[in-house]
Amino acid sequence: MRDMKTKQGPARGFKLTLAYDGTDFKGWQRLAGESRGPRTVQDCVEKCLTRLLGEAIVICGAGRTDSGVHAEGQVASFACVTPAAAEKIKRELNAILPRDIACLECEEVSPRFHARYAATGKTYRYRVLNRDEPDPFLRRYSFHVREPLDLGSMRGAAAVFVGTHDFSAFTNLKAKDKSFERNLGSITVERNDDLVDMVFHGDGFLHNQVRIMSQALIDCGLGKLDADGLRALLAARVRAQAPAAAGAFGLCLLSVDYPSESGTLSAAPA
Amino acid sequence: MRDMKTKQGPARGFKLTLAYDGTDFKGWQRLAGESRGPRTVQDCVEKCLTRLLGEAIVICGAGRTDSGVHAEGQVASFACVTPAAAEKIKRELNAILPRDIACLECEEVSPRFHARYAATGKTYRYRVLNRDEPDPFLRRYSFHVREPLDLGSMRGAAAVFVGTHDFSAFTNLKAKDKSFERNLGSITVERNDDLVDMVFHGDGFLHNQVRIMSQALIDCGLGKLDADGLRALLAARVRAQAPAAAGAFGLCLLSVDYPSESGTLSAAPA
Repeated sequence: MRDMKTKQGPARGFKLTLAYDGTDFKGWQRLAGESRGPRTVQDCVEKCLTRLLGEAIVICGAGRTDSGVHAEGQVASFACVTPAAAEKIKRELNAILPRDIACLECEEVSPRFHARYAATGKTYRYRVLNRDEPDPFLRRYSFHVREPLDLGSMRGAAAVFVGTHDFSAFTNLKAKDKSFERNLGSITVERNDDLVDMVFHGDGFLHNQVRIMSQALIDCGLGKLDADGLRALLAARVRAQAPAAAGAFGLCLLSVDYPSESGTLSAAPA
Repeated sequence: MRDMKTKQGPARGFKLTLAYDGTDFKGWQRLAGESRGPRTVQDCVEKCLTRLLGEAIVICGAGRTDSGVHAEGQVASFACVTPAAAEKIKRELNAILPRDIACLECEEVSPRFHARYAATGKTYRYRVLNRDEPDPFLRRYSFHVREPLDLGSMRGAAAVFVGTHDFSAFTNLKAKDKSFERNLGSITVERNDDLVDMVFHGDGFLHNQVRIMSQALIDCGLGKLDADGLRALLAARVRAQAPAAAGAFGLCLLSVDYPSESGTLSAAPA
């Protein structure tokens, strides 16, 4: 038995689907080497899993959401040697997680499954409260724009972003040796009563890309910018010419895509 | 001009519709005589109005919501002599109110309009999150019940409360000289995905009545109590025999009813 375990290495892999209210977190990522660093989602989940499983757990998140950004469907993976059933991990994790994080799903996967490398797409929502009065219940989860937004203009402008482009003007990423090309599959802009939701689906996004695109689309909805202006900004590739990023609190990572067989125990035996 | 003003007394009356996230308030009511008392909704709104209008404003709320209870449609009235347009009051109030309170409407009414005395009905919602996993976004606004609720049982039990009854067993009100009789117009119990909402409409409610009835209906949904049990509790009129009050955070004052002409400037000239 002991031999088998040693041979298997990290015996089990798990895939977690997490929801969190990002308001009181300094983002997803634990800052390496800081013993008493800022409160991050990764750090909170790792500490709870380490306590539950009795071994040091390191988790990998599909997307490193920024400070204040929310998630309804973040995905994280980890491996462990302690025997534990997925359903039990979920239940016990929810019992000890802080109330602004919840584990929605836990499933056993191949220990080689990596939530970030295996991800093939992500969906983000940017939410605007578009009415004169503020809403106390949505103040943490939406950006308040008083002036009426023209959805036709926003949709026309959104179409400019769809497809493969160099998004240099739409990221705060500084690294010069990296590619700024990304493929955006779709953007939908829908009004639901006083809420205007922009939903972005793509293979992957650059740092702050969704928030900068969101502010650009809001500017289009207010008549301050239009589709031609966006085309020019994309072509110029100068960050300073594009709008600032819309507030983090309006952004939520809705879901992460994986190939259907990705990480399943049968498809990827260790 | 000066004479006219003196004759008119408090020249103007206003009716405010307010929404607030009750989480960080010690309820609606300002505690009289406390110069640095706990944070209450009434106190916050009065301070903002006093600052805006340049005269000491006292507001009267239709319902004195408890600590932690929310409102989507609380109504409050006040009178003032400073000339000001309702729309301007609303706009400027929202600019200086803390972000957990919003003014949804402001209309000029007769200065004799009194939000509490004129009210003819109130609607409260008690919200339950009924699924295994917690929800970080609803943690302040719903009571988490993991075990599946049987809505048929809850509806059957709710029918017992409807009508005129002595609700002595369903209030924490202690006063012995008051009437405990109240008329409950309707209770609806609806499931919307993982949320179970109980909506109570009545002429008025005793202290903690909605929260105690809510816990009783939840107990019915879990099979711990039934319609016959509720009938016995109502008849016995002993507070200690009925359930404890469900958590304040699940409760929200949705709206307050007034007769259609109530407070209108034409119907009630000063």
